[in-house]
Amino acid sequence: MSSTFGNRIKISIFGQSHGHSIGVVIDGLPAGFALDTDHLAQYMARRAPGKGPHTTARAEGDAVEIISGLVNGFTCGAPLCAVIKNGDKRSGDYKNLADIPRPGHADWPAHVKYSGFNDVAGGGHFSGRLTAPLCIAGAIATQMLEQRGVQIGAHILSIGEVKDRPFDPISPEIAQLCGQKLRVLNPEIEQKMLDCIADASADGDSVGGSVQCAVVGLPVGIGGPLFGGVEGKLSQAIFAIPGVRGLDFGAGFDACKMRGSEHNDSYFMQDGTVRTRTNNHGGVLGGITTAMPLLFKVAFKPTPSISKQQDSISCQSLQDAKLSIVGRHDPCIVPRAVVCVEAAAAISILDMLLEEKL
Amino acid sequence: MSSTFGNRIKISIFGQSHGHSIGVVIDGLPAGFALDTDHLAQYMARRAPGKGPHTTARAEGDAVEIISGLVNGFTCGAPLCAVIKNGDKRSGDYKNLADIPRPGHADWPAHVKYSGFNDVAGGGHFSGRLTAPLCIAGAIATQMLEQRGVQIGAHILSIGEVKDRPFDPISPEIAQLCGQKLRVLNPEIEQKMLDCIADASADGDSVGGSVQCAVVGLPVGIGGPLFGGVEGKLSQAIFAIPGVRGLDFGAGFDACKMRGSEHNDSYFMQDGTVRTRTNNHGGVLGGITTAMPLLFKVAFKPTPSISKQQDSISCQSLQDAKLSIVGRHDPCIVPRAVVCVEAAAAISILDMLLEEKL
Amino acid sequence: MSSTFGNRIKISIFGQSHGHSIGVVIDGLPAGFALDTDHLAQYMARRAPGKGPHTTARAEGDAVEIISGLVNGFTCGAPLCAVIKNGDKRSGDYKNLADIPRPGHADWPAHVKYSGFNDVAGGGHFSGRLTAPLCIAGAIATQMLEQRGVQIGAHILSIGEVKDRPFDPISPEIAQLCGQKLRVLNPEIEQKMLDCIADASADGDSVGGSVQCAVVGLPVGIGGPLFGGVEGKLSQAIFAIPGVRGLDFGAGFDACKMRGSEHNDSYFMQDGTVRTRTNNHGGVLGGITTAMPLLFKVAFKPTPSISKQQDSISCQSLQDAKLSIVGRHDPCIVPRAVVCVEAAAAISILDMLLEEKL
Amino acid sequence: MSSTFGNRIKISIFGQSHGHSIGVVIDGLPAGFALDTDHLAQYMARRAPGKGPHTTARAEGDAVEIISGLVNGFTCGAPLCAVIKNGDKRSGDYKNLADIPRPGHADWPAHVKYSGFNDVAGGGHFSGRLTAPLCIAGAIATQMLEQRGVQIGAHILSIGEVKDRPFDPISPEIAQLCGQKLRVLNPEIEQKMLDCIADASADGDSVGGSVQCAVVGLPVGIGGPLFGGVEGKLSQAIFAIPGVRGLDFGAGFDACKMRGSEHNDSYFMQDGTVRTRTNNHGGVLGGITTAMPLLFKVAFKPTPSISKQQDSISCQSLQDAKLSIVGRHDPCIVPRAVVCVEAAAAISILDMLLEEKL
Repeated sequence: MSSTFGNRIKISIFGQSHGHSIGVVIDGLPAGFALDTDHLAQYMARRAPGKGPHTTARAEGDAVEIISGLVNGFTCGAPLCAVIKNGDKRSGDYKNLADIPRPGHADWPAHVKYSGFNDVAGGGHFSGRLTAPLCIAGAIATQMLEQRGVQIGAHILSIGEVKDRPFDPISPEIAQLCGQKLRVLNPEIEQKMLDCIADASADGDSVGGSVQCAVVGLPVGIGGPLFGGVEGKLSQAIFAIPGVRGLDFGAGFDACKMRGSEHNDSYFMQDGTVRTRTNNHGGVLGGITTAMPLLFKVAFKPTPSISKQQDSISCQSLQDAKLSIVGRHDPCIVPRAVVCVEAAAAISILDMLLEEKL
Repeated sequence: MSSTFGNRIKISIFGQSHGHSIGVVIDGLPAGFALDTDHLAQYMARRAPGKGPHTTARAEGDAVEIISGLVNGFTCGAPLCAVIKNGDKRSGDYKNLADIPRPGHADWPAHVKYSGFNDVAGGGHFSGRLTAPLCIAGAIATQMLEQRGVQIGAHILSIGEVKDRPFDPISPEIAQLCGQKLRVLNPEIEQKMLDCIADASADGDSVGGSVQCAVVGLPVGIGGPLFGGVEGKLSQAIFAIPGVRGLDFGAGFDACKMRGSEHNDSYFMQDGTVRTRTNNHGGVLGGITTAMPLLFKVAFKPTPSISKQQDSISCQSLQDAKLSIVGRHDPCIVPRAVVCVEAAAAISILDMLLEEKL
Repeated sequence: MSSTFGNRIKISIFGQSHGHSIGVVIDGLPAGFALDTDHLAQYMARRAPGKGPHTTARAEGDAVEIISGLVNGFTCGAPLCAVIKNGDKRSGDYKNLADIPRPGHADWPAHVKYSGFNDVAGGGHFSGRLTAPLCIAGAIATQMLEQRGVQIGAHILSIGEVKDRPFDPISPEIAQLCGQKLRVLNPEIEQKMLDCIADASADGDSVGGSVQCAVVGLPVGIGGPLFGGVEGKLSQAIFAIPGVRGLDFGAGFDACKMRGSEHNDSYFMQDGTVRTRTNNHGGVLGGITTAMPLLFKVAFKPTPSISKQQDSISCQSLQDAKLSIVGRHDPCIVPRAVVCVEAAAAISILDMLLEEKL
Repeated sequence: MSSTFGNRIKISIFGQSHGHSIGVVIDGLPAGFALDTDHLAQYMARRAPGKGPHTTARAEGDAVEIISGLVNGFTCGAPLCAVIKNGDKRSGDYKNLADIPRPGHADWPAHVKYSGFNDVAGGGHFSGRLTAPLCIAGAIATQMLEQRGVQIGAHILSIGEVKDRPFDPISPEIAQLCGQKLRVLNPEIEQKMLDCIADASADGDSVGGSVQCAVVGLPVGIGGPLFGGVEGKLSQAIFAIPGVRGLDFGAGFDACKMRGSEHNDSYFMQDGTVRTRTNNHGGVLGGITTAMPLLFKVAFKPTPSISKQQDSISCQSLQDAKLSIVGRHDPCIVPRAVVCVEAAAAISILDMLLEEKL
């Protein structure tokens, strides 16, 4: 089903980019948790668009109003509903999009799927703006995970050809993530990434990139075989983020070229705990966590909304047409997607953790 | 939940590698479908181990017995249950594995998750052998999809450093897949791949690889936004295949380096149909099919079972230990995984197709 | 999972009686449906408390605000979220309830389940007020069902010892349901029922009753065997209404005393259609609809909130305690429950109908 | 979905009455449980048809073969699959049923739903025989519940007009259930019930009845509000038993006539535990268990298969037709249904119990 997620907790995301409100209902949260609204606001701020050339100029605000599920700041066992009002809307920018679908966007297949009744303004329910309610859920899940000793951190691994260094697979440097405007491990790479984005923007174009995420503090035994694996569960949440085109775990696609003797992570005892010397498996074997850091990479395509004129068609006349997009758009979604990847990871892992009796 | 899959159809896989039987229950299949048991047998034969140096020497047989859901060869609307008896078992080979987990396998996390009660013989429920019931479901789904005009084809994209050419993204050459022993597009690459596997085998080692899959004939409109996307659904099934470490759609991880003007697939009209000139999006936009070929790539790690001695630990004594694996194992699982990828795709797509009123 | 329902459509209800807002998210609604907001308002008005002695004096208002899922009055395929703000609250009335649970209410088990963090004001998420979002979903489902030729009607079958006549099982008189204040078939019974409620109220007491519901216009073939039957599906929705203690289908509990020759509904052809001469089966055989009217009865307990002093305990001191309830409460919930039964039926049947390719 | 059940455990029932085999897959069972196969056999024997006039003459055998999920007698965490081969079949008895549907059976709606491809022999997947796999799952769940201190017991409450006395609602006499051939509380009633069944049988007819079930030892806090209530969950399992027409909890339908002061169960402290003096609520308030005995009643219709000639239609010609049923059939299914009710309760409660962290 389209906009709901989870077994133990149930997340239901609603709203369209330029509609009245967007929001999320989270059912099944443990009662008695003291929600940290400052953390929530900071979390949302990480997703919010900035002022620089690398993000959209729209001032979203994203003031989160929690309208159910909290009593005196504590979760009460009832579903939590959080709403963000859509304020700064310029639907006029999207008027011609009702007829001419933007290449690389959901416009055309959504038009067919919903018989032309889909909300086209701002991408409607397919907008990247719907990652805001995802981040609300992610922030709450993150807080609950931290209480259980689990931390999540992600950084920009690449933008275009510019690459950050990857996490140390044994001890991911989550606490050292930095960057004034971009979340990276290597602070020297930040300006190069910003330049790469600015270059694309100057050309009326956009650029893709990738994000790497680490989850530390997980116990052994989360997940399961076959369809119940950690990878499949995380995938469903990660692919909910618009623009994701792939993900891999541990050595991932690099494992295709490796030999078993190289890829296998041998076990050893360390202070009474079973550990692996390397972490090509990325913390998951047979769909189950090993208590080594969970590591995965996510590929993002370049923002499809670009200023350059593009070939398209008219939905009405079913004839070829030209399209020029004039709205405000990020030339690269990756900077704002970092926290979305963390959020998707957080809801997946909390759901799996609560399913286990751990 | 671990071993069940699907919304409209419900697939429940059971069995352990060296137990009595393995099998699958498929609930929700449309009634009145004439099952082609010859096709099913051929499909299963593609997964069965061969005689060459590149596959395990175990003769599985894999005779499928359908014990419910069929009347006079037609599906009757009741759940279909198919069973494969486990014949040729050598559990003795696995005896020391009960204590010393194999690096790269599920042994250790499964031992913890199931408090030592998991079936260790042959990997139990985590064995690659459990892809046999997956393929039963895949064969049936494939037949039902073909009746609806949908075809699926996959090939080995790479083994180690040896690469096949990718599908033409506009017209995937599904009908031209060939190979005496390996399913490839370029017949000249087959021997090089076999050599690569043989080299690894000769070294008591194994090697990884990748598979590319194409699905053609899909209508516009399958899937949905957010958690209901085609990519998330397929992922859950693909990651059920042991050894999968990543997957990407269309341009996938290559999209990270691209600009929007390059990655965007512009629309045009062709014989009254909306098409894209390129297919970097791999047939899915916003989680919804576009009727362009669905394309994705799957990364497989090298088989973790290798002859070389490895470092491990003892589950009982929790001390370091050495492990030498003496059982029969594929030096590369990719050749047999091709049909498994097709099967995972088939069950995902049939489930989504039946959810739509198409 | 507690507050979500459905396979093809997903309904997620949120809110607490005296919190900020209550509401519902409905995912999976077909796109392009013109929502009739007048019908919605009338539907909600049927659930709203009245002025008479038989209903609570609280003026709920229940103004429904739809904050997503509609564009220009048409469903757009995105989840529909509707919210009702909680206005007239007197939480002070419930203060002592935080410690002394009301007999017959969820207070005590909820206190234990949620470790004392549950919202006690007005019953929180367990309040009958949560049937308002159920009715929002029910109104929308009802409209979509009517478009498909399906009508639903319910009436008060009994209050205390006062009984209305049951529906004609072959041709339920849905169009003849009447009553100034109570929905009944026999208009002469209305005043007797009102008197019965007034008597209980005068005694500082409450009274139970039952509701009968009919669904006409269903095709043959909705539902399925075993766990997929119409009865089980309806039950899950019906038992979501606070105060429901039982339900039965067709002859129901009376069938226990019958012989097969009496209970069996023989078939005959009528104008080319297969019909049954009687309808003891209530429109469902083997969990599947027969196209005969679907008939079921629902038992409601007397409102547990009564003015009379009651024995209870203190949650804090775990000692015996006395409880006097001073808030506003319906002496009989049955009059307002009629539309809730219809709503629960509507969402169940729409979900099952959309699952079928009918 | 039709034949699958559960959130934390997933039960998938397969098979047709006269097909190759019937069986069940149970996914999600805790690992390390020592299955008592003697208890399983005794449990199955309770459902098996006897020799007397009150049950069918078919010798089912019902030898249960567990083909996965057990290692050395312990659950191993992998799905458990159990199979019963169908031995003694007389499909010839059912030949004319392919065309002339039996009144009161699923034949006609199943014929329409499955376009005539449904298995008609013996009722196919709709047969009461499918309660055998339900009982396998129930037996296993019962054992796991007993390990957790939960006991389940049911008895025949009525057959026709003959009634057993109900359970003591505070201390259900589960241990005192007795009867040579029928499970009752009052041993003097057994022969009257047998006579009632024999009378119906002598008339070529059948008779209905009811079952009452008690569950003791549950903790406070199982279940949840709205759609997650204990009643809704149990209903889905109970209505999976063929012939069930209704169920109610605690005072049930009798509550309709009661006043609140009579129906409310006041709390008091007993040895440091919160208890209620009466148990009209049947152990569930607001969908959540109170730790008082869970009590519910189930209504069964008379067996629809009777010897008397009945009016029906021809599916092929769509004309009126006469039907005489010659197969072997129970004149009353209630005696064999007692254990099925217990089984349905057991799987529901185990699933809910495992969902809680209790």
